[in-house]
Amino acid sequence: MKRFVALAILFLGSIVSVFANEIQNPEISSILEVQQYNRAIHIMAMLLIGFGFLMVFVKKCGRSTITATFLLVSVSIPMYIAIKGIGVFEGKSEVEQLILAEFGAASLLVAAGALLGRIKIYQYMILALLFIPFYIFNELVVLDDYFNFIGKVADTGGSIIIHAFGAIFGVAAAISLTLKKHRDTPILADATSERFAFLGSMVLWVFWPSFCAALVPAAAIPMTVVNVFIALCGSTIATYFASVLIRGKVNAGDITNAALAGGVAIGATCDYATHTQAMIIGILAGAISTIGFALLQKRQEKFLKMVDTCGVSNLHGIPGIFGGLAAIFVVNGIDAGAQLKGILFTVVIATVSGLFSGKVISLLGKPKEIYTDATEFENIDK
Amino acid sequence: MKRFVALAILFLGSIVSVFANEIQNPEISSILEVQQYNRAIHIMAMLLIGFGFLMVFVKKCGRSTITATFLLVSVSIPMYIAIKGIGVFEGKSEVEQLILAEFGAASLLVAAGALLGRIKIYQYMILALLFIPFYIFNELVVLDDYFNFIGKVADTGGSIIIHAFGAIFGVAAAISLTLKKHRDTPILADATSERFAFLGSMVLWVFWPSFCAALVPAAAIPMTVVNVFIALCGSTIATYFASVLIRGKVNAGDITNAALAGGVAIGATCDYATHTQAMIIGILAGAISTIGFALLQKRQEKFLKMVDTCGVSNLHGIPGIFGGLAAIFVVNGIDAGAQLKGILFTVVIATVSGLFSGKVISLLGKPKEIYTDATEFENIDK
Amino acid sequence: MKRFVALAILFLGSIVSVFANEIQNPEISSILEVQQYNRAIHIMAMLLIGFGFLMVFVKKCGRSTITATFLLVSVSIPMYIAIKGIGVFEGKSEVEQLILAEFGAASLLVAAGALLGRIKIYQYMILALLFIPFYIFNELVVLDDYFNFIGKVADTGGSIIIHAFGAIFGVAAAISLTLKKHRDTPILADATSERFAFLGSMVLWVFWPSFCAALVPAAAIPMTVVNVFIALCGSTIATYFASVLIRGKVNAGDITNAALAGGVAIGATCDYATHTQAMIIGILAGAISTIGFALLQKRQEKFLKMVDTCGVSNLHGIPGIFGGLAAIFVVNGIDAGAQLKGILFTVVIATVSGLFSGKVISLLGKPKEIYTDATEFENIDK
Repeated sequence: MKRFVALAILFLGSIVSVFANEIQNPEISSILEVQQYNRAIHIMAMLLIGFGFLMVFVKKCGRSTITATFLLVSVSIPMYIAIKGIGVFEGKSEVEQLILAEFGAASLLVAAGALLGRIKIYQYMILALLFIPFYIFNELVVLDDYFNFIGKVADTGGSIIIHAFGAIFGVAAAISLTLKKHRDTPILADATSERFAFLGSMVLWVFWPSFCAALVPAAAIPMTVVNVFIALCGSTIATYFASVLIRGKVNAGDITNAALAGGVAIGATCDYATHTQAMIIGILAGAISTIGFALLQKRQEKFLKMVDTCGVSNLHGIPGIFGGLAAIFVVNGIDAGAQLKGILFTVVIATVSGLFSGKVISLLGKPKEIYTDATEFENIDK
Repeated sequence: MKRFVALAILFLGSIVSVFANEIQNPEISSILEVQQYNRAIHIMAMLLIGFGFLMVFVKKCGRSTITATFLLVSVSIPMYIAIKGIGVFEGKSEVEQLILAEFGAASLLVAAGALLGRIKIYQYMILALLFIPFYIFNELVVLDDYFNFIGKVADTGGSIIIHAFGAIFGVAAAISLTLKKHRDTPILADATSERFAFLGSMVLWVFWPSFCAALVPAAAIPMTVVNVFIALCGSTIATYFASVLIRGKVNAGDITNAALAGGVAIGATCDYATHTQAMIIGILAGAISTIGFALLQKRQEKFLKMVDTCGVSNLHGIPGIFGGLAAIFVVNGIDAGAQLKGILFTVVIATVSGLFSGKVISLLGKPKEIYTDATEFENIDK
Repeated sequence: MKRFVALAILFLGSIVSVFANEIQNPEISSILEVQQYNRAIHIMAMLLIGFGFLMVFVKKCGRSTITATFLLVSVSIPMYIAIKGIGVFEGKSEVEQLILAEFGAASLLVAAGALLGRIKIYQYMILALLFIPFYIFNELVVLDDYFNFIGKVADTGGSIIIHAFGAIFGVAAAISLTLKKHRDTPILADATSERFAFLGSMVLWVFWPSFCAALVPAAAIPMTVVNVFIALCGSTIATYFASVLIRGKVNAGDITNAALAGGVAIGATCDYATHTQAMIIGILAGAISTIGFALLQKRQEKFLKMVDTCGVSNLHGIPGIFGGLAAIFVVNGIDAGAQLKGILFTVVIATVSGLFSGKVISLLGKPKEIYTDATEFENIDK
């Protein structure tokens, strides 16, 4: 009798328990997915308003740049979902798929930033079609370690596979798309175009924690997002000082761009770093990026015989690789070999696929003069 | 004894179960309402920043347009809550009330878009006072089927009752408020006003999924929001191609407006469509809307002897009705008769109430020349 | 036996119950913290994009203002977290710390608004270093009642300790930083700078409910956020009427600023007021603020021999104190003495610390001519 009672209690108790969980779990998992959706919206704001307006600093290209941004996002997101839907997405939720597609779009927008003014709007769409498969391939190899070739790479917020990949792809593609004359044409901004660029920069800054924490489990989000903000604070302060120290005056382009380098660099370690480490990574990234814009960009362009319109190599390329390397010193129990192999593989794939894609796009024509809105838009006040 | 034990176990087990639920359920329902609130904020961003700046493309009316947007929202939201609070809101939560009020404000802003430049700021406030009661009436009849007259209409994201209603109301009101001279005055934009309009357009694009999914249960949100994004991607791509094919060049107004038509059209089916259907609806909506802007608008205006300043008939009117009709082919088990009756009733109510409201507002005066900021604002650099 | 069974049931029942909670509670608390994080992002959008662009109305200072905003936020947030981290933050979660730091940054940005155009970018950073310790001291004394000196003050959304404190600090600091000549220099805006200011204003309006509800328990959020929106609707409508009644025409500066006074004033009572009370507080705040901008500002500036560039005394100062006083009539069981002591203490600390900080900053130099972007930035089209 005793045993029967005990059994009954255990049996019924577990039914109650299971029943309570049956009510609860679907709700909790829905709630968690809606919270993820919310971060997906923040990332979409970064893609369109953030990246879009950051590139509006070129004063005669506002409409083309924004339209290109719209199209790059609109082509790449369904394409990513479609390709990965063929088989690689099993077990991924709707919103996770969306976020991974947004990551691909972010990397594509970085790449496009290098080419601004030298390709036509339909060529941006071809860029998207070429970019996404290479991006997916690199993501599979390096992040998912699909071929058991790399090992475990730390890159939660995409320093390596999103930022560095996009920047290197873009710079490589720029080589085939730059004429001598382009390098002698100054890129002009004005007070209005710079204020729009500041707007884009601020949208990126504000929502960056949601980008890095997009796929992080709920319990790790608070730590992660505070790290990202602290890294951005660090790079913003470092950018101001570096800009004044190197140039004598502040440069608006440094602030709009290099202030974000902390976000790029903290990506690889955002869920591991302490707040102090995040601040140090941010400060170093801001300084490195500003040095890049102020001292290296002209030399890079001369050396590679290309123009990197938005300076993506100095905002996303070098800080991205720096962030990937920083993980080796920050993440406990990291596989340093895998991390280095992951970075190296990303650099190689991005370079090769960028060179190839630039060549393909250049077959469709490259401009004698830099394109402006007047090239492709109606009713433009020149 | 056995029976007693079994009884005791069931009794205590259910107490435990109820107790667990008592702790859990209020929290879960609070959490769900806070998530809804979050979508309410996204919608508010669409109303003020989205609709507001989309209309800033008219270069000499920026301040008036933004101020009118502020006032339309500030009058309509408390008014909606107050009217519905009299008795129709029983059982609705605070945040649901707010979202329904925001839907009314969205429809009002669509209507106002047709009248831009031809009414003064205080007349916008009168427009709001006239619009909201008619909107509530149509919502009661068509969506809530309050009089058991229509049947069940599929319109989760408001293709019919928000977008089409607002657009038709606005166009009907425009008839009484347009002079011959207005039709001969070109609506001028410039590089800065168009960049602001792009900003508004992007804010609408980014947050549109939260608009459509605002009142959708948590479990259905992921599917819904991905559908909305896919439809927007479709309409954006279609708009670009249609614009170039019809006009020879890209038109900035097409991109800022017609790119959003996918969001308008997917509203009726956002929680039912497959992703493929969403893409098709988006592409068709973008194409239809661009054809409207590029080929039909001048004829519509000539035929109805009015000016539709923002082209709301081609962004919200036709794509809204298209979306409502698409539901007949997409939603399993839809009552096609009810859907058609709902659309028809909305068209009739919107036309009659728009004509009436336009007449009333025109009694307070209509301008010989199109209003600019200089009409009503201090310190304007002409 | 019976007793044994009953005991066993109770024992096992409570294990089941505890077990159910063990699964559930960490998830729920994570979910609640992620929801808080979400409000933290909204506040960050207000700080950078909202406050930042609201101040861009000064047409020749756009780049400096935005850069200063970036730096004020980047210095103050880590500094607040670091100072409070020394010991006062025990028991506060990561995200709560972040939100409290953002509140400090908001107050600092209010203060900086009074000084715009008369301090250099590095001086803003010194302002931040001076401001945050005083702000923390006032917060400890008035809000946390750390010294058991004030009693319980109602100020959930920071009417007193954020808005009034920042405004009074800023005005006091402005006294040492204003030359006679500055008072004779008109502050010029143009169509573009005003549209950017409208953008900033709208971002503040849209996200204000998340500011007030940031630390409110989930169950009280719906009521709170609807109150905040209603108060903003009230102040927006009142501002339009007051502006036209006093000036004869609408003033863009009134709309961008005074429309927000409802948000400032509802802070102290946002989680207590009825919707009707919220509407009344909003209307009064909008009217008071507009009267301030239209009638009082010139006299305030003459009386105190200073320039309050953004008119923070009339947007944040007077409406903040009004909101703090309104709590005495709105909050059930409020300790009116504590509320008055809290307001008084805040006014005194803000005045003294503002005068001191202004003096310190002025030792580093004040400008003969108002600073513009050309003072500190490269490549400026004058």
